[in-house]
Amino acid sequence: MVTRIAIDAMGGDHAPHEIVAGAVWAAQEYGVALELVGKQDRIEQELDKISHEGFYSDCGRRGKQQKIKIDTSKLDIKITHASEVIEMGEAPGQAIRKKKKSSIVLAVDAVAKGSSDALVAAGSTGAAMASSLFGLGRIPGIDRPAIAVTLPTIKKPIVVIDAGANSNCTPEMLYQFAIMGTTFSRNVLGIENPRVGVLNIGEEAGKGNELAQAAYKLLEESQGKVNFVGNIEGKEIFLSVCDVVVCDGFVGNVTLKVTEGTAQMMFRILKEAFKSELMGKIVGLLAKPFFNKVYTRINYEEFGGALLLGVKGITIISHGRSKAYAIKNAVKVAKNAVETGVIEKIAQYSEG
Amino acid sequence: MVTRIAIDAMGGDHAPHEIVAGAVWAAQEYGVALELVGKQDRIEQELDKISHEGFYSDCGRRGKQQKIKIDTSKLDIKITHASEVIEMGEAPGQAIRKKKKSSIVLAVDAVAKGSSDALVAAGSTGAAMASSLFGLGRIPGIDRPAIAVTLPTIKKPIVVIDAGANSNCTPEMLYQFAIMGTTFSRNVLGIENPRVGVLNIGEEAGKGNELAQAAYKLLEESQGKVNFVGNIEGKEIFLSVCDVVVCDGFVGNVTLKVTEGTAQMMFRILKEAFKSELMGKIVGLLAKPFFNKVYTRINYEEFGGALLLGVKGITIISHGRSKAYAIKNAVKVAKNAVETGVIEKIAQYSEG
Repeated sequence: MVTRIAIDAMGGDHAPHEIVAGAVWAAQEYGVALELVGKQDRIEQELDKISHEGFYSDCGRRGKQQKIKIDTSKLDIKITHASEVIEMGEAPGQAIRKKKKSSIVLAVDAVAKGSSDALVAAGSTGAAMASSLFGLGRIPGIDRPAIAVTLPTIKKPIVVIDAGANSNCTPEMLYQFAIMGTTFSRNVLGIENPRVGVLNIGEEAGKGNELAQAAYKLLEESQGKVNFVGNIEGKEIFLSVCDVVVCDGFVGNVTLKVTEGTAQMMFRILKEAFKSELMGKIVGLLAKPFFNKVYTRINYEEFGGALLLGVKGITIISHGRSKAYAIKNAVKVAKNAVETGVIEKIAQYSEG
Repeated sequence: MVTRIAIDAMGGDHAPHEIVAGAVWAAQEYGVALELVGKQDRIEQELDKISHEGFYSDCGRRGKQQKIKIDTSKLDIKITHASEVIEMGEAPGQAIRKKKKSSIVLAVDAVAKGSSDALVAAGSTGAAMASSLFGLGRIPGIDRPAIAVTLPTIKKPIVVIDAGANSNCTPEMLYQFAIMGTTFSRNVLGIENPRVGVLNIGEEAGKGNELAQAAYKLLEESQGKVNFVGNIEGKEIFLSVCDVVVCDGFVGNVTLKVTEGTAQMMFRILKEAFKSELMGKIVGLLAKPFFNKVYTRINYEEFGGALLLGVKGITIISHGRSKAYAIKNAVKVAKNAVETGVIEKIAQYSEG
């Protein structure tokens, strides 16, 4: 049976236009079926536009926009009407209880009922987490779901878990993150025996805050179940010395955003440096294809989205700023997660 | 009277050669006097070598080494013999009690006695902190000293405090970091009314872990004393939206190292991209001066070192990997800190 991905068509800074466009694009490219959840008339309008006028995307390359036209009538697309939308500022727990007909709640419902196999959400991260936890339930043995993101390194991508779901964590939660991160790395990224590190501020076991120290001890005692390689410093994340980094969601989120911010700043400083004189402008033009290569390697849009691990279903959380290209990649991540059965494997592993 | 800087000549991966060279270089360039603390024969040997053979430095530019020769007999250099050295792996508290004749303990002593005005240390950060706290004492009103680092942004540098001294913090400590960071930004970096932010994972007051939430509240109540502008996300650090970022030393250290790691990775990926084909190699050569400009702007060596704030004296903590150029800049930071009277100003401000 074909894999069907539910999309919160109303979530994200560029919803519904870019979200619907990205989903349709993925449907054509990866052969998945869609369940678009949101205001029916808006979604139909977008689908019509994509079929007749097409949409524009920079295809993750920065700069020149390409026009893409897709005949949506030939794709397997189901629309589920949702009359409400949860906005970015709303308190997640309250919002999902109050807005039972919101696009995110109904998209999670679609996965819970089995009409879709996974879901992609680019709206409020808090609302996506809360509705997933409430609608899909926790995997036995996992106290709290966590967000797993994939970051670029000089070699293979690395998984950082938790990237923002839980600001206050216990050592046991970090141990569970290690289990989930290992399963994700092995099954979705294809790394045979993923090396797990604790994000810390020094190599030695006694370094860091109370949480990191206790997590170190717990993971050391769990050798065999987890391939624990010790503490990992912030700088080493990018050196491919391990495959999974565990940390609390506060530190993980800061790490993710500092990485993004540093890369952004460097591109901006590079641009300024080349633009400061005529010779630089010329060399800059020649260098553009090489910069684009680098940009592609570290661009978050390429990674598409983060997995919310620990719930009984697949929720992909995308960047709020996601445009069509990022959503397309998020759908690919969702499809991979479905086909590799990562959720079932986490359940087996955490119980076993 | 001339400013005299004490140098732990034995601390750091490249001690004593690069440390002595950098100190002497600074003495000549900035007109400071030196107190070199360490094994007398080793230091004399290095001074002799610098006078007769010179030393090599890349001057923070990467690549080509330049030869620098300085007549050390013409400089105001005092040597203080220290028979012991604290190694990187030693437990700081224990080591400073046991090794009373170590170079770091005696360098702090020099500042405590007033024979020097400030100190630069590139050895064990823990030992530098412990000996400074023990030898210089705390400023009244400050519970724990903190490390203030300066990071590059798209505009003016930003101060991150605490960058690693305290892994577990209270909201009151973060408030004190805000006071110290403000004084540093105003007096050493020349920013008139420094904007202070709390490092967090979202904008809203209710976001983040317990510490960040409580610190937000405390700083909000202290408006007038601190120019508090709210929460700052990891990405915004580099956008010049504030001048001082406060956080616990665990998160601060991760931030510092993730910034360094991301920048390093990007330079490596850039190099690979250009080297992958002939055209790239040619363009890469032409682009080199522009890359060097960027490298200089974000290179930690340019910032020289971090200030340990909250003790009654000036301690500059340099990167363990510091070579001569970084030490030269660290001495400059020390000189600035002395001349602007930042310690006295923190004392006035935190009491007032």
